Amino acid sequence: MKSIKTILDRELPDYIDGYGEVKPFQGAFSDGGIKTRKAVKLTSVTPYDRKVLANLEQVYDKLNMKDGMTISFHHHLRNGDHVLNMVVEGLAKRGIKDLTIAASSIFPVHAPLVEHMKSGVVTGIVANYMSGPVPEAISRGELKKPAIMQTHGGRPRAIESGDLHIDVAFIAAPTADTYGNINGVYGKSACGTLGYAISDAEYADKTIAITDNLVPYPACPIEISQVFVDYVVQVESIGDPKGIVSGTTKITKDPVALIIAKMAAEVIKASGLVKNGMSFQTGAGGTSLAVAAGLKDIMKREGVVGSFAAGGITGYLVEMLEEGLFKTLFDVQCFDFKAIESYRNNARHQFMSASMYGNPHTKGAVVNNLDIMILGATEIDTEFNVNVTTSSNGVIMGGSGGHSDTAAGSKLAIVVTNLMKARLPMIKDKVTTITTPGENIDVVVTERGIAVNPRRMDLIEKLSRTNLPLVTIGELKTMAEKITGVPKAVRNSEKIVAVVEYRDGSVIDVVRGSRDTSSAMRSSCQTRALILDA
Amino acid sequence: MKSIKTILDRELPDYIDGYGEVKPFQGAFSDGGIKTRKAVKLTSVTPYDRKVLANLEQVYDKLNMKDGMTISFHHHLRNGDHVLNMVVEGLAKRGIKDLTIAASSIFPVHAPLVEHMKSGVVTGIVANYMSGPVPEAISRGELKKPAIMQTHGGRPRAIESGDLHIDVAFIAAPTADTYGNINGVYGKSACGTLGYAISDAEYADKTIAITDNLVPYPACPIEISQVFVDYVVQVESIGDPKGIVSGTTKITKDPVALIIAKMAAEVIKASGLVKNGMSFQTGAGGTSLAVAAGLKDIMKREGVVGSFAAGGITGYLVEMLEEGLFKTLFDVQCFDFKAIESYRNNARHQFMSASMYGNPHTKGAVVNNLDIMILGATEIDTEFNVNVTTSSNGVIMGGSGGHSDTAAGSKLAIVVTNLMKARLPMIKDKVTTITTPGENIDVVVTERGIAVNPRRMDLIEKLSRTNLPLVTIGELKTMAEKITGVPKAVRNSEKIVAVVEYRDGSVIDVVRGSRDTSSAMRSSCQTRALILDA
Repeated sequence: MKSIKTILDRELPDYIDGYGEVKPFQGAFSDGGIKTRKAVKLTSVTPYDRKVLANLEQVYDKLNMKDGMTISFHHHLRNGDHVLNMVVEGLAKRGIKDLTIAASSIFPVHAPLVEHMKSGVVTGIVANYMSGPVPEAISRGELKKPAIMQTHGGRPRAIESGDLHIDVAFIAAPTADTYGNINGVYGKSACGTLGYAISDAEYADKTIAITDNLVPYPACPIEISQVFVDYVVQVESIGDPKGIVSGTTKITKDPVALIIAKMAAEVIKASGLVKNGMSFQTGAGGTSLAVAAGLKDIMKREGVVGSFAAGGITGYLVEMLEEGLFKTLFDVQCFDFKAIESYRNNARHQFMSASMYGNPHTKGAVVNNLDIMILGATEIDTEFNVNVTTSSNGVIMGGSGGHSDTAAGSKLAIVVTNLMKARLPMIKDKVTTITTPGENIDVVVTERGIAVNPRRMDLIEKLSRTNLPLVTIGELKTMAEKITGVPKAVRNSEKIVAVVEYRDGSVIDVVRGSRDTSSAMRSSCQTRALILDA
Repeated sequence: MKSIKTILDRELPDYIDGYGEVKPFQGAFSDGGIKTRKAVKLTSVTPYDRKVLANLEQVYDKLNMKDGMTISFHHHLRNGDHVLNMVVEGLAKRGIKDLTIAASSIFPVHAPLVEHMKSGVVTGIVANYMSGPVPEAISRGELKKPAIMQTHGGRPRAIESGDLHIDVAFIAAPTADTYGNINGVYGKSACGTLGYAISDAEYADKTIAITDNLVPYPACPIEISQVFVDYVVQVESIGDPKGIVSGTTKITKDPVALIIAKMAAEVIKASGLVKNGMSFQTGAGGTSLAVAAGLKDIMKREGVVGSFAAGGITGYLVEMLEEGLFKTLFDVQCFDFKAIESYRNNARHQFMSASMYGNPHTKGAVVNNLDIMILGATEIDTEFNVNVTTSSNGVIMGGSGGHSDTAAGSKLAIVVTNLMKARLPMIKDKVTTITTPGENIDVVVTERGIAVNPRRMDLIEKLSRTNLPLVTIGELKTMAEKITGVPKAVRNSEKIVAVVEYRDGSVIDVVRGSRDTSSAMRSSCQTRALILDA
């Protein structure tokens, strides 16, 4: 094993046990050109075959489940998901070991995985985002293999290319018919679009629909087609509606966050991107929504009609669609009831798969057409690299989700953040973990000043003509450290507990074992915010 | 080269020049089990790449078009299609030779292909259905390689498996946006669903959208996603609306056809399949619609609500949907304006790709769930094998389309036909060309009697309890021959001009060169009926 370096100067081993060879990150657009979507083996059926099985035990028998398999799950049921725990519990009871869980995201509800990690039932985890007890246990070194952290676009890339081979995809299906057609818009566990489950369904060796709303053939609408589904099984409940969606997402009332949001909206205006045909994406957090509110005012005042808003969709964006401020929405995941209802009823509220959303190895993802993206951060360094994967003490408490994908695709990627959080400075010489490379971050907006990436001289020039408080990223760091002091360097163990993959499958960083996971424990309020980031 | 036999006793060479090795037909469900969807190479793009090219010449330059390529087209613009001729003409001007045209169907409008066949620009044709001058020229032996006749489900099977490799798919796009999202429901050349174009778009090396309605990003709705489209080009016109759809399809007024339709409806009723949840498909011809009308009366009288009707969709089926007689429609192709309008506006009028419709090598096509299918025939033999590929004198004038797929999938496949046509008997000892194997044909309904396949003793028993005129297929043949005399055997040349592939890719028959194509010339009225069969 020898040491290699990414283009961002992170030192990595060239080989990681339980992961394999490391392809170091070489720049956001370094890995393009000709790519391959892998061949898929499938079991064809005759008109006489039936797909509905009586229970999960029959499913496991049919699938010949065995040690070492990779099983996949989508996270549209979020912190209300019952399916992942149900399946892993069932397989554990059968004595299956050494499973890899490829879940698009992991939430606090998945805490039972921690015991399965300890007992060797689960030895690998691949996810785009993780919060709660599972990533804390991973940070303590309790998972046998390093976890693999991907992005929302990198995951379908990995699945479609064959880098991530799925033996069985278990699709939590709010509605499924007897021949495997699935939608997420009807049923007691309705969650809206199933964008994150598409590549799983299409590329897994076997695909199973697990539903608590089995309907006669054919379902309507159809988000995942019968041609990809091997078996259908009905269970009592696939999820807790209270955990699936968050009710109505609300704009922040925090005065500092409101100042940041107002400045971010001003930056967007000054960028010249607010014009007919513009496109916009933001997370579902309170500050992000406040930016959307500010942008909305500007659009209305100037009579601008945008082309699309994208991403995980909130009721707030639905309102903007309905008011005619955007012509369409691209929705990979519905964040609240209003979004689900709109997606169900409004043809202009359009579906996108995670691959269409952000996979860099297609003929063009939606993020490529994004003008403005509002992002969060746990840490930012003076090269504009962003960490949303670990806390400052190195404990995993998030992950890219769509962070890297949208930063890479958008014309203007703005990080909005307080200058300090919990007495820690947000701007550092080096972030603990690099999630998104600085080359794709254009502006950092804090309550004390706005720093523009020096790569964007055009933007610096435009913002110079405004009254916005422009500073350098170094000045932001100094301001923060004057108040907080310079934080002590975190000394994690040597053991690599997670590999952070960039969207193209290269390794942009690794996470080493933490000696302190206590400070990663957060209030339920913070947990909720974290869930909304995924 | 040695001679081999299909399970239906047709003698075939084991190798055909210009086609390759022959896999003889061994039964409708003999080729199941594990199948592979092939790997696909694609050129990934960056956020800076643009897809709109100025004209087709630029497209050909970018694609590096060269001799021997296979280029594909869909047939949703039917006899109004401008795109196939436009592209082949352009390539001919560049001096390209030896092209294979993989078009889902070929119509009279594609007559210019005949000259391109003579000049060597086009040396291969693959289609599910052909009518007009092109198949006549093929029958005369004017195409260098044997044409390959597929089925609507067999074509996507061939494309997805890699049996039919497409270098470039040219998608006639009634609406396309600047990043390649396509729909068929808006624009001056609107044709409704684009079900036949999906596998082409997904599996071709390169996919081009040719549109006469280029709209700003993003299109809404999206039937073919940007992730599959390399380039977009705008042209003056992709089609003649008058040829694209047929206006309103109407029920036959012919008294004999009405008698046949009435009896077919009675057969359906007697089969016991008219019950809640039933499903139904028919062609768009006048007799088929008359059967639908009869079925509709029975459903209304008995208060039955069906699950779905499928296939190419006519306004007549739309009415049945709107009246609540079916819960949903599965539409691979819209036959008339009413169908297009319904598909655009009614969520219960659902899309299906040709693969979802009839591909036998998926995890389950829609045809597998079909109860009742109404089919046409050019000839039927005493083993119930059906010919819809050639006329009685062996000239190609049709093809399976969805004939074999729906016959295989449905519980009750009924052929409706006059006992004689143009003084020729419809029932023969051996059909000129086998399109659909008799094992999948359950009943033949003529104005003079109804023959049930002896494999279906259950049906014979049920129909015996009615007053319907049950006869054997042999008796039908005798009845016809008493009037027409026994037709002379057709003596075609030895040259194989077309290979008839069953939906699983095996060869069910071949067509040999015809010595007489004159009688294949038909009135425009008949041509219209033929177009509606595709």
